[in-house]
This record gives sequence, structure tokens and C-alpha cells, in this order.
Amino acid sequence: VKLYSNQHAVNPRRVRMFVAEKGIDVDVETVEVDIATRENRQPPYLEVNPLGWVPVLELDDGTRIAESIAICRYFEALHPGPPLFGGDDPIAAAQVEQYNRHVEHELLMHVTFAFRHLHDFWKDKIEQVPAWGDLAKRVATERLDWLDGVLDGRPWIAGAHFSVADITALCAIDFARISKIRVGEREHLSRWYAAMKERPSYEA
Amino acid sequence: VKLYSNQHAVNPRRVRMFVAEKGIDVDVETVEVDIATRENRQPPYLEVNPLGWVPVLELDDGTRIAESIAICRYFEALHPGPPLFGGDDPIAAAQVEQYNRHVEHELLMHVTFAFRHLHDFWKDKIEQVPAWGDLAKRVATERLDWLDGVLDGRPWIAGAHFSVADITALCAIDFARISKIRVGEREHLSRWYAAMKERPSYEA
Repeated sequence: VKLYSNQHAVNPRRVRMFVAEKGIDVDVETVEVDIATRENRQPPYLEVNPLGWVPVLELDDGTRIAESIAICRYFEALHPGPPLFGGDDPIAAAQVEQYNRHVEHELLMHVTFAFRHLHDFWKDKIEQVPAWGDLAKRVATERLDWLDGVLDGRPWIAGAHFSVADITALCAIDFARISKIRVGEREHLSRWYAAMKERPSYEA
Repeated sequence: VKLYSNQHAVNPRRVRMFVAEKGIDVDVETVEVDIATRENRQPPYLEVNPLGWVPVLELDDGTRIAESIAICRYFEALHPGPPLFGGDDPIAAAQVEQYNRHVEHELLMHVTFAFRHLHDFWKDKIEQVPAWGDLAKRVATERLDWLDGVLDGRPWIAGAHFSVADITALCAIDFARISKIRVGEREHLSRWYAAMKERPSYEA
């Protein structure tokens, strides 16, 4: 099994944390794809993923799974415990899906746009719209207040159990630091963030 | 069971099409939420969903599932056939997830931003960044080429079987018309779009 990845990118980290939390002992050969030189946007990588994104999981028979949460769901299907997508209960599974997607759409997406449209790293690589980066940064900051409210009275984002939604939020929040968006004094979010840092998967 | 919904919005349509494709005979009371008057961004709706989005499914015990794909997965868990998320096979399920999410991130998201940042409907409702709307519109148009390539040699987006990825793409493409983004002459996409229009769920 091969994982096309990048050490600094946010989505490959979600997969690494997921594998660490599952405790899966899988022999994965990591292929580092250099985003800084746009290796991901050129042949031969575009044959691996025509959209140019990492991560991509390549199975030994050549089958490719080209998206972080799709990869996580594949591992979850092969190794159901501990359940990180809510397990077999339809309501628990729906709530993990809801929160994971809310964290993606509300927080991670805006954090990503803030980075892409404001940071010098992207200056000569993509068409930047700084006014959109500014707006996305403000929205991302407001969404930290929303997430603080979600965590009021519960240990983890989807409720009583740690889930993939916590992994997505942690990766988004650490990735936000490059855009100077921070957890700050938010009470429940700070408690949760400290608990996330204690988990062995944090270093993944 | 109650569904907070809006007849013109893209995400509630995904749920309606999904329910129609599953052939689920469920007694759903639809509560129309008016986006034009910002009813979705005010109390009492903000108690139903603090983020202000539709759709939200409310079960008879008061449990809420506040996101379209989370709602679809809930229905899929209760009524597994026909499988629209790839069923029990880990690879098939991962590939449906990949394509559904790719269609969302690449096409639907940019279609939505083009509408929100360019259309007069949103003028006095949100902070618009027209330069971002223009860029999003161009990206969405390019992604129709990508989707045309995906459909080269296969009947449906995730492969041999109809899936939720087709529903997402159909809703995105119809929603794109308000921003003058169209299927046009793209060969494989046109064939697929004609097939989608033949399905009874198209009218849902």
C-alpha cells in the first residue's frame, strides 16, 4: 500500500492521525509529493490524481482512493474498532458525519481559503483574491466561537465519543496558525485543544 | 419526522432526490424556511440549527440531523437498498465517498460561491467579493471538463452504479444555471445529464 502525501499539508495529516487513533499496523510506503514546486500539479502525479490533490492511497492492485475522508472510511471498514465514524448506530453515525462536515465547511474550508488567498507562499502559484482571504479569515475566526459553543458541556465535538470530527478540527486549528487564527481564550475549545495535544496521535 | 427545508436551495434537493431514489415511504412533514427573508438566520430557526442552514431532519424524539449528507446516510442506514453510498464493499464505499466529495469540493462549492458572490439576490444579505465570484465561476466551468472526463467510459460518476455522487452533481449542475454555467457540448456529461433527467427522482 502506498500513500501519496505531503508532510505539511492539512489533509494528509488527517489520515495520519486517523491511522494512529485506530492503532492500525499497516505497512504503508509514503511517497512525498512536493507542493512547493507544484509537483502535485504536473505529470506524472496528475496520472495518480487528475485533480492534483494529496493524499491518495494506492492499493497493491493499483486501485486508488483519492480523498482523505474516503481513505479514512476505507480504513474504518477494514478495522471497525474503535469506531471513529459513529459505528453501527444510525443516529450516532449521522451525528459524526454532520459534525465532521460542519467542521470542514465552516472552519477548515475558510482556514484553507485564508491561507491560499493571503499568504505569500501562494503568491506566484495561484490567482489570489485578498479580499476573499480577509473575509474567509474573519469567518474562520467566528466559527471558532461556534465550535467553542459546540464543546460546551461535552468532551468531544460529536458528543461523548472521540471521532473523526475531532481530527478534522484539530488539523484545521493547527493549520490556522499560519494565518494567525488562534484558539485564544475560548474556554471549552481550550480545554478540548489541551486534551487533543495529550493524545499520541497528535504527533502523527 | 420533520424536514426543515427550502424549495429553491440546493442541499434540500439532494435529500429529496435521495429519498426518491431509495423509494422510502416515510411520512415527512416539510417545514419551509424562507431564505429570501433570512428566516434561517434568525430565531427561532437558529435554535433548530445554530449555523442557519437547511436542511435539518428532526426525529419524533427531537433529535436533529443538521446536514444534507448526514441525513442521507441516516436514511441509508435505515434502508440499505438500493445502496447509494457503495454498500458493504470497502472499496466501492470509499470510491462513492471520494467522488461525492470531489463533486462537492470541486463543482458544488464553486457553483455556490459564484451565486453568492455575484448574484443580486445576495447583494444586501451577505458581504460579496465579486472578484472571488468571478474566479469561482471560472473554476466551476473548468470542473465541468473534469467531470466530463470522469464520465468517459462509465455510466455513472462513481462507476457502474448510480450513487449519491450523481445526485450531488445533478443538483450542482442545475443550480449552476442561475450563474450561467452550463453543461453545453460536453459529450459524456451531456449523455449523463440526459439520463439523469429521465429518472423519476429528477422532479423531487
